[in-house]
Amino acid sequence: NGKLKVFTLNSNPELAHEITEHIGLEMGKSSVSRFSDGEIQINIEESIRGCDTYVIQSTSSPANEHIMELLIMIDALKRASAKTINVVMPYYGYARQDRKARSREPITAKLVANLLETAGATRVIALDLHATQIQGFFDIPVDQLVGVPILADYFESKNFDDVVIVSPDHGGVIRARKMADRLKAPIAIIDKRRPKPNVAEVMNIVGNVEGKTAIIIDDIIDTAGTMTLAANALVETGAKEVYACCTHPVLSGPAMERIENSKIKELVVTNTINLPEEKKTEKVTTLSVGELLAKAIIHVHEQRSVSKLFD
Amino acid sequence: NGKLKVFTLNSNPELAHEITEHIGLEMGKSSVSRFSDGEIQINIEESIRGCDTYVIQSTSSPANEHIMELLIMIDALKRASAKTINVVMPYYGYARQDRKARSREPITAKLVANLLETAGATRVIALDLHATQIQGFFDIPVDQLVGVPILADYFESKNFDDVVIVSPDHGGVIRARKMADRLKAPIAIIDKRRPKPNVAEVMNIVGNVEGKTAIIIDDIIDTAGTMTLAANALVETGAKEVYACCTHPVLSGPAMERIENSKIKELVVTNTINLPEEKKTEKVTTLSVGELLAKAIIHVHEQRSVSKLFD
Ligand SMILES: Nc1ncnc2c1ncn2[C@@H]1O[C@H](COP(=O)(O)O)[C@@H](O)[C@H]1O
Ligand SMILES: Nc1ncnc2c1ncn2[C@@H]1O[C@H](COP(=O)(O)O)[C@@H](O)[C@H]1O
Repeated sequence: NGKLKVFTLNSNPELAHEITEHIGLEMGKSSVSRFSDGEIQINIEESIRGCDTYVIQSTSSPANEHIMELLIMIDALKRASAKTINVVMPYYGYARQDRKARSREPITAKLVANLLETAGATRVIALDLHATQIQGFFDIPVDQLVGVPILADYFESKNFDDVVIVSPDHGGVIRARKMADRLKAPIAIIDKRRPKPNVAEVMNIVGNVEGKTAIIIDDIIDTAGTMTLAANALVETGAKEVYACCTHPVLSGPAMERIENSKIKELVVTNTINLPEEKKTEKVTTLSVGELLAKAIIHVHEQRSVSKLFD
Repeated sequence: NGKLKVFTLNSNPELAHEITEHIGLEMGKSSVSRFSDGEIQINIEESIRGCDTYVIQSTSSPANEHIMELLIMIDALKRASAKTINVVMPYYGYARQDRKARSREPITAKLVANLLETAGATRVIALDLHATQIQGFFDIPVDQLVGVPILADYFESKNFDDVVIVSPDHGGVIRARKMADRLKAPIAIIDKRRPKPNVAEVMNIVGNVEGKTAIIIDDIIDTAGTMTLAANALVETGAKEVYACCTHPVLSGPAMERIENSKIKELVVTNTINLPEEKKTEKVTTLSVGELLAKAIIHVHEQRSVSKLFD
């Protein structure tokens, strides 16, 4: 094995420092700045010849800036003779553009995979890829970690009496099932339906939520429209209280306002996306994926299976 | 040949419309917008199956946004079965990162070339690439047009008495020579030297500028430091008046202030980079490359040599 070196870029420096602390390693020395016209200037400030390098960068908003930073860093590592270039993407931007929903659309999640490989990435470590198919967009190994255990442990420690895990749509049932198994709870599913065209959607709840503590789980919460409507529908149907959780808090546009005004009692997220201070409100609890990613890096570096991390 | 279709992205829509007007073509229908979290959403809104497509986009500031827009558009065109995807980049961003100036730096100009090819570009048309070597970074054909004839024609129409063309550094002498030949004028060269370390640079002028109208020419004017110092040195050495010109007006940071406060009488630029209103001051004259690019597109589409355009 080459020597282990971890570098951070500008999307999650705090998480990156948590990771190097868990590993017990100094952060790799690099400077990532801007020329006067806004172009990115990167310099790696220590020798990495023959090293196994890990770059930590979520391609969260501003996604395009973060993607270009990552690609340019990979190029610099490659030209500086790194042995391997492992890209740690706690959040993989453009993951929702994973198929042509209409004719003549791009498949940007696949484009980003191609760009990373072209730049010189040799492996990707990601958390909760929006679609598992994205692994198949790469011709290099992709390790996918999941946020459910971290979220489940948090709720477990609350010792709720009577819990139901709620999937906000049919696509999220497997994730809700995993969470429910850990908490030994039943599941419910929100079945959104539009009775007639141009008529508002109806939130139909499949499963029993009466008198229970409902925990809605999703991978991404973006504008929080579905999530807050679902929370309110659950309360109207008799749920005692509603918690929401997700791995990736995108929280764009009206999200924070909707959450504050909703029946959601607490929103639990992880730090795959760095929340700005104004989004760290009283309702929001952030759990760290730092230890999980540190373990994943050590496992990969020692050529041990990452799937062991899910036990 | 496939049918000719021209599309614009968001960096130079005005130039793009000029181009389609010159060709006598409707602008291709596409929508380029943003999702709530800032990710780019592109849809091509007409069939382009089997067409020769041309996408007009300078990767000017914000370079990263404009590059990602371009890559995603290329991906969409490719998946919509375009026959050829010709990328028209009036300004090629990151061109100055064309070599490792220090150890462990990226070569971003080459990275961008690789990214464009990976996305699916089949040809590039560019104007005044900062280094001619950038053509060699591509494995697809690259047509390079030059701004000199347009700039020279403008100054020719001024009928100056006694002109000297000035290169602001040794790297720009060939360009100044071309301009001088067109205007039947001599050249001078600014020979920047630092007499001792940590002492300010001295602007030494090689050639006779006494009593003459000096025209400084460069490919890019960015922060305008060199350009304005050179202008002032020329006046001090006896030049009657000083004009400055370039193809690509990057004009970042202190550029406008420096130009306004300098001895430069008029700055002549082209519209390869779209100038915001506040930079269109009285001192600044903008010439259009629209007709040149329209001709280039027609030549390429009809498989005629683009070098004919330089006669
Ligand atoms: N950044 C984004 N924000 C909102 N919607 C998106 C984004 N990227 C892609 N989409 C759309 O989300 C849909 C896919 O989401 P999903 O059905 O949850 O997998 C597609 O229709 C995409 O057009
Ligand atoms: N966007 C930029 N702004 C200013 N300088 C840059 C930029 N990109 C690259 N450079 C630097 O410009 C130098 C190359 O410019 P040149 O010597 O004119 O070819 C290199 O030292 C680069 O590090």
